[in-house]
Amino acid sequence: MEEWLEHLIGSITPLDKGILDAAQKRLDSLTKPKGSLGMLEELGKRFVAIRGNLEARVEKKVVFVFAADHGVVEEGVSAFPKEVTAQMVYNFLAGGAGINVIAKHTGADVVVVDIGVDHLFRPTPGLFQAKVRRGTGNIAKGPAMSREEALKSIKVGAEVAFAYAAKGYNLFASGDMGIGNTTPSSAVLSVITGKAPEEVTGRGTGIDEEALKRKIKVVRRALEVNRPDPSDPVDVLAKVGGLEIGGIAGLILGGAASRIPVVVDGFISTAGALIAVSLCPKVREYIVCAHKSAAFGHQAALDWLGCRPLLDLGMRLGEGTGAAIGMWLMELGEKILHEMATFQEAKVSEGVET
Amino acid sequence: MEEWLEHLIGSITPLDKGILDAAQKRLDSLTKPKGSLGMLEELGKRFVAIRGNLEARVEKKVVFVFAADHGVVEEGVSAFPKEVTAQMVYNFLAGGAGINVIAKHTGADVVVVDIGVDHLFRPTPGLFQAKVRRGTGNIAKGPAMSREEALKSIKVGAEVAFAYAAKGYNLFASGDMGIGNTTPSSAVLSVITGKAPEEVTGRGTGIDEEALKRKIKVVRRALEVNRPDPSDPVDVLAKVGGLEIGGIAGLILGGAASRIPVVVDGFISTAGALIAVSLCPKVREYIVCAHKSAAFGHQAALDWLGCRPLLDLGMRLGEGTGAAIGMWLMELGEKILHEMATFQEAKVSEGVET
Repeated sequence: MEEWLEHLIGSITPLDKGILDAAQKRLDSLTKPKGSLGMLEELGKRFVAIRGNLEARVEKKVVFVFAADHGVVEEGVSAFPKEVTAQMVYNFLAGGAGINVIAKHTGADVVVVDIGVDHLFRPTPGLFQAKVRRGTGNIAKGPAMSREEALKSIKVGAEVAFAYAAKGYNLFASGDMGIGNTTPSSAVLSVITGKAPEEVTGRGTGIDEEALKRKIKVVRRALEVNRPDPSDPVDVLAKVGGLEIGGIAGLILGGAASRIPVVVDGFISTAGALIAVSLCPKVREYIVCAHKSAAFGHQAALDWLGCRPLLDLGMRLGEGTGAAIGMWLMELGEKILHEMATFQEAKVSEGVET
Repeated sequence: MEEWLEHLIGSITPLDKGILDAAQKRLDSLTKPKGSLGMLEELGKRFVAIRGNLEARVEKKVVFVFAADHGVVEEGVSAFPKEVTAQMVYNFLAGGAGINVIAKHTGADVVVVDIGVDHLFRPTPGLFQAKVRRGTGNIAKGPAMSREEALKSIKVGAEVAFAYAAKGYNLFASGDMGIGNTTPSSAVLSVITGKAPEEVTGRGTGIDEEALKRKIKVVRRALEVNRPDPSDPVDVLAKVGGLEIGGIAGLILGGAASRIPVVVDGFISTAGALIAVSLCPKVREYIVCAHKSAAFGHQAALDWLGCRPLLDLGMRLGEGTGAAIGMWLMELGEKILHEMATFQEAKVSEGVET
């Protein structure tokens, strides 16, 4: 393994058990029946344990939308034409997309990372330019990218994490934009979870029955043509993945190395999480699965991760829309831990709980 | 039926189908695959249809915490002593409770309605004083209250709705506080849904096995002693209910009459919704079930209502904590409907969706 990646992975530490215990003790002293705020309590506890400080507060939140194009679109696997990737980047930068409205409501910033869009953008506020290449190759015919490019996409994601950690952000959400990107995500899921292509391939943005059959065949062909090595996550990413998937994997690794939780969005982001966890199983404790996407096959990925999602709102937009809400819930958990009164402070009688 | 109640129910109209259709059309023109924001889209659509105006925006949000005491506490059905009801009211007014932290995070105000706490409070900002009586009678031995008192509790809830509609609030959440109130809620659920007491009676704030058995017996005895008439919701409320349950039922009716959505919290609030919907089935369209509570038996109530809850975060605190989050999600749905760019505005190519 490359030295920088080995170093990055080596810098990720297990969560501090002492802080988890101290947070639990504090939660149990608050004016509510023990455990009665359910997963919100877990989120608050996990936030401070990841930060390594019982008093850590959520400072600034950011959703990273990793955008890239996919050569496999020429196989007719998407309901939308390829140029929509770049068009949607402009929509993000203008503030008109779903993620803009949701992020604003949650108090988070949106940063678009051009990691591989097949279009040249001018420098614009809110756009992080780190194009590895102008879209991937068609995985039905050959590898998505070279091993070097796959590694570079991971490095970009980690660098984004470090750059925003340095700016004072301490809660991250992953998001994606890339017409065609459910196809490589299904391929990555299939290789890593061992599920058959038809078990993890769905309708994406909304293709019909015929197109779905074609898409499943494309995933199967991508695996046959490229023969990715399941024991080598970088090989999987290079052969059947995508640049935004690599970026998200890198964001998770860089977040964990910076002791910043990464709230993982739906189908595409979870494929990135599969790569990150395969590279470094310890990052499991640093990620929060925001929601169960309505995308077919997502549950298999969540099961493999052993991650119970926070939400199940029938969403399947990507862009980090589910993750932004998840990040807001984690912030709420942190506030519960720090802002609620204790039984003693509020002079409320404690129960005889069992 | 009393004239005012008949008049209140008569003033509730079905949702405007034209606005639902227009909202759907607008949602389908926005820059996202159709339906890809799932339940958020439904919430936005429902908000404008309830308000009767496609352009309606969420103005001010408020959580009402209906607080009351319960004579049945003397049967040993709760893990907490009765005085905690009043102590928690002081905690709400001081801003230290779970609902305070959650409401603040969502941008909602908290109003505590003293509808039946066995304690006299001084006038305080944030406290709506409308005590019907100082707690109910012990339902294991006789009726919770008289029919007149039950009607008065409903009237208080409706008056609260009208008062806050007049203040410019247009999104409501229900909440409750009352040591012992899962017991009357289980009794109400059992009568209205037809489920046996053991199917709808759980551990409340955290009682042990022995206390749970006692609680189930208490619910059964309450039904035997009082023989509530399932076809007369006011009789059910009077005989085995609670003052906050009546207040919540009234809030729902008053909200619907004011064309304001009421986001319903967990176990106790849903018991209130059962009374409201039994009185006026049309209000079903005006309520949103915020979450599946971890309280045993809640699912049976949701099934009876035919309401799919938004969240399942393992919460069981009450106070309106789940409903406040649900209200924030409805506001988000409204923003999606009104703030996202259309394909045309953003110059994004439309897909060939099926």
